[in-house]
Amino acid sequence: MTAPVHFDKVTLIGIGLIGSSIARALGVLGLAGTVVAADRSEAVVARVQELGLADEATTDLAAAVKDADLVVLCVPVGACGAVAEIIAPHLKTGAIVSDVGSVKGSVVAQMAPFMPTDVHFIPAHPVAGTEHSGPDSGFAELFHERWCIVTPPAGTDPEAVERLTAFWQALGSRTEVMAPDHHDLVLAITSHVPHLIAYNIVGTASDLEQVTESEVIKFSAGGFRDFTRIAASDPTMWRDVFLHNKEAVLEVLGRFTEDLIALQRNIRWAQGDQLFDLFTRTRAIRRSIIDQHQDTADPDFGRARK
Amino acid sequence: MTAPVHFDKVTLIGIGLIGSSIARALGVLGLAGTVVAADRSEAVVARVQELGLADEATTDLAAAVKDADLVVLCVPVGACGAVAEIIAPHLKTGAIVSDVGSVKGSVVAQMAPFMPTDVHFIPAHPVAGTEHSGPDSGFAELFHERWCIVTPPAGTDPEAVERLTAFWQALGSRTEVMAPDHHDLVLAITSHVPHLIAYNIVGTASDLEQVTESEVIKFSAGGFRDFTRIAASDPTMWRDVFLHNKEAVLEVLGRFTEDLIALQRNIRWAQGDQLFDLFTRTRAIRRSIIDQHQDTADPDFGRARK
Repeated sequence: MTAPVHFDKVTLIGIGLIGSSIARALGVLGLAGTVVAADRSEAVVARVQELGLADEATTDLAAAVKDADLVVLCVPVGACGAVAEIIAPHLKTGAIVSDVGSVKGSVVAQMAPFMPTDVHFIPAHPVAGTEHSGPDSGFAELFHERWCIVTPPAGTDPEAVERLTAFWQALGSRTEVMAPDHHDLVLAITSHVPHLIAYNIVGTASDLEQVTESEVIKFSAGGFRDFTRIAASDPTMWRDVFLHNKEAVLEVLGRFTEDLIALQRNIRWAQGDQLFDLFTRTRAIRRSIIDQHQDTADPDFGRARK
Repeated sequence: MTAPVHFDKVTLIGIGLIGSSIARALGVLGLAGTVVAADRSEAVVARVQELGLADEATTDLAAAVKDADLVVLCVPVGACGAVAEIIAPHLKTGAIVSDVGSVKGSVVAQMAPFMPTDVHFIPAHPVAGTEHSGPDSGFAELFHERWCIVTPPAGTDPEAVERLTAFWQALGSRTEVMAPDHHDLVLAITSHVPHLIAYNIVGTASDLEQVTESEVIKFSAGGFRDFTRIAASDPTMWRDVFLHNKEAVLEVLGRFTEDLIALQRNIRWAQGDQLFDLFTRTRAIRRSIIDQHQDTADPDFGRARK
């Protein structure tokens, strides 16, 4: 990569976990002359100022993007279209406009109609996060060794794609270019449906009449607690993900349910060999994830012990 | 608790994650005069000797329980009956015989018929573990702050129950007494069904034709990787859990699927408010689990970062 990674002015819109992590990384790495943080919430803007996350912080999205060379929307997927409409008339010629949304087809559909022809609109998705949200939860290393998927529309200037890719690599990410539809299917299985079933099992547990919530919490170390981490993720963000990646989520969910019904039948008819075969096969995938540094090999994720 | 915690001779049968963790804790705490480790695998016995986990190690289960004051079966649930039959004639009068199985109704049904009337048969279940298995994977602190559920059959000598309870407390556990059937239902929702859906989603992911396994692994940090940890648990142990807790697992699984179908319908019909309400409710349970020290509040479980 020989593309220049430095931008004179970067504007981040939406300062939650991802936006504040980018802001922190920009500060640490010195990738931007000026960093502007914009958020429609006055409380968030005040907090950004207290934390010193950016050179400027404002609730005025239109003013925030003025003269920016790179604008990154870090808002829930459902808000992308509205933000695009607000900022479009104020974008600088030649600016790169990107986002970090977990769904890409919908982001393209919402934002592209507003984008002026003289800016480079390149959606992207850093596959990184924690269960915490808000400007306090970010950290500069969030993207280290994580993948960022870039989904440039057909005909996008390759040099602009290269600049955005180099930007994410500078933040520590590995990058991959993908078509929006394929991204949405890949993420449906690697992220969206896992979140949905985590939310669902926690809901089922809290609704069971025969088992008290106190029991569920006490004995959660048997496996349940791992699901609660994911089910503590930001509700607004995740509501939007499911509403905006409906087709792929429903497709993968159909497969998941079909497979689960087959397992249920294996249990009912005591088909232990089928269970054993699946449980053996799944171990291999875990090993690959660890080999590729997408997780730690420490038992129990290396959770600190008392 | 005023019951004495020291046993002259403790025999552990089955030296995997749990058995080797008890052995290590006994060594650290000095709770036993002699620790005997028995396993039907010669390789495991050799490894136990290399690691110095016990005073004696043998494949001869009958000889191992001779003169033991406490015998703890740490074998897959499906093997309890066979082990009980082997050891029963050799048990010392007044010995406590217990286990660590994740299912209690079936353990009682398998073992009780073999138990002599002059021993105290008290099944128990320490709700603790990691995804690793075998004698190398254990550690003395595994049970710290975790719950151990004791399920004494009606009419069990209260003093023996108190001794076993004190034993687990000495290992660092909190203890609770429960009926076997209720235990099996509680564990179905807090452990067994979560494991089943983790195994299932990993299976579904690896079977999808449109998404490569390489993509699933690369982008697993979006949520999927958390499930793979659980789906890397010991296949034999988990096959036995599902076969031996069939009724409760099928009941809870039915509820889970029903709830999932409702969520699926919410997504199809864009009922965002219902999704948002569930996603908000599930956060509260996460907070309680952290407050009660059953998990860490560190983002991402405090996974070490590069």
